[in-house]
Amino acid sequence: MADAIRRLAVRGAPAIGLAAAYGLAVEALHDPSEVKHAAVLLRATRPTAVNLAWALDRALEAFALDPTAQALVDHAEALAVAQLDHDRAIGEHGAALLSPGARVLTHCNTGPLATGGAGTAGAVIASAWRAGRLAHVWVDETRPLLQGARLTAWELGRAGVPYEIVPDSAAGALMSRGLVDAVFVGADRIAANGDVANKIGTYAVAALAHRHGVPFYVAAPRSTIDPETPDGAAIPIEERLPDEITSVRGVRIAPAEANALNLAFDVTKNDLVTGIVTEAGVLRAPYCFTHR
Amino acid sequence: MADAIRRLAVRGAPAIGLAAAYGLAVEALHDPSEVKHAAVLLRATRPTAVNLAWALDRALEAFALDPTAQALVDHAEALAVAQLDHDRAIGEHGAALLSPGARVLTHCNTGPLATGGAGTAGAVIASAWRAGRLAHVWVDETRPLLQGARLTAWELGRAGVPYEIVPDSAAGALMSRGLVDAVFVGADRIAANGDVANKIGTYAVAALAHRHGVPFYVAAPRSTIDPETPDGAAIPIEERLPDEITSVRGVRIAPAEANALNLAFDVTKNDLVTGIVTEAGVLRAPYCFTHR
Repeated sequence: MADAIRRLAVRGAPAIGLAAAYGLAVEALHDPSEVKHAAVLLRATRPTAVNLAWALDRALEAFALDPTAQALVDHAEALAVAQLDHDRAIGEHGAALLSPGARVLTHCNTGPLATGGAGTAGAVIASAWRAGRLAHVWVDETRPLLQGARLTAWELGRAGVPYEIVPDSAAGALMSRGLVDAVFVGADRIAANGDVANKIGTYAVAALAHRHGVPFYVAAPRSTIDPETPDGAAIPIEERLPDEITSVRGVRIAPAEANALNLAFDVTKNDLVTGIVTEAGVLRAPYCFTHR
Repeated sequence: MADAIRRLAVRGAPAIGLAAAYGLAVEALHDPSEVKHAAVLLRATRPTAVNLAWALDRALEAFALDPTAQALVDHAEALAVAQLDHDRAIGEHGAALLSPGARVLTHCNTGPLATGGAGTAGAVIASAWRAGRLAHVWVDETRPLLQGARLTAWELGRAGVPYEIVPDSAAGALMSRGLVDAVFVGADRIAANGDVANKIGTYAVAALAHRHGVPFYVAAPRSTIDPETPDGAAIPIEERLPDEITSVRGVRIAPAEANALNLAFDVTKNDLVTGIVTEAGVLRAPYCFTHR
């Protein structure tokens, strides 16, 4: 499971939390004495999404109270069920923010493939579509790993939602032309002050939205909020291998000796965030999270 | 030649102007009566870069005065020589804007491969490197066609300039971290009021640079300035085929039925442009071009 998370076979902040919880349960079924070691291994896979550490902490608490494999299986199952509820609530709260005919821009992948439920921003899009409030989705392709072009496009096509993929760099042109009514993205970690770490490129979209008066919403379960992280500067940003940039799907696109910098996430400061859509409702500035 | 320009075998605003001038000369060597028809064909290849129309207009003027193939050959040769001079001057004027240790971000390709000379923004980078003023270049990969990752990386590697490729969406994160001292880009058309059409994504970089107080310079020969185009809204923006986005170097990256919108250029308004570096020096706001 650690390997699957590390190489992104499972990705999306809520989904990796859930996968880690199940991973720990599987380890406990094999050898309960290895649970703590497995938690260390799983925790080290990816640094930015706080849901991973959160799910492991909750699992270890449950295991401390009841050191049986069944306790960890029950915890993982409960987490999966709660995620379904939370995603549904996020979708409904977010869809209520849109007016009929809305054209929404999104970045990265935040649908069922990212959470195990309906998604975060993806749940908002699906819910708005069902409610007849959505006209079009602009899907940022999301370089380097193309989660938008590969995963979000697949999810939206399957759901029958009208969409077009655009290069990440096109958001400004679309907003200049008045073609974007709202932005919805997910989050990998939300700091106590409302700063948001999310897929690289999120900050550019937020800054452009601000410039054009387009509302910029972050959709995330409260497990993505980390009161222990004071602000965005304190969020560890994962740096991945350059070959994710110099090659695309196994095809080399840059000269053989080319260097690349691969920051997987960036930070959007709280003043650019119109609202944070959680399962408990839409939170607005000033953000000050002391508990989830 | 028209086909080569259309499929981007020749690209870069100054280079396509030059290629069109030579194309016309070649046509005149074959059949002088076909020159006007050839000009119509060449002019229709790409709509945004004004250097194409400019070079054809100058060639047709020369041909009207002296309707021989030699007149068109001489015109093309003169244009090529002038481009070398202009690029050199642009490089020197631009390099003077940088302080030693500068870290420059650039978008798309603007070096020798784009002009036939030293380039536009690329000439500034080369000149600054030779003058010992440049520490590092951030190369936007420039989706969808990856002119940054493919061409600019190749040019910089060949010239020994230290660089790293980044996804287009990373410019904001780099600026947030204080890693960018200046942005230099080229242009496909500059309107009379200083609005700039350039490769899609340029506007996002300009807006982020503005937000972070990073100077944003456009480097272009005066043949890229079009006094006949009042502002950015009047610049025709080329829309190319979606498969440039849904496939990368022949590998399909999006679901089979996926749609994509492929705007090749965007417009950066004049208030975001710190200066326009031409062969005649650095021009600054307010921009009001009545002649080139």
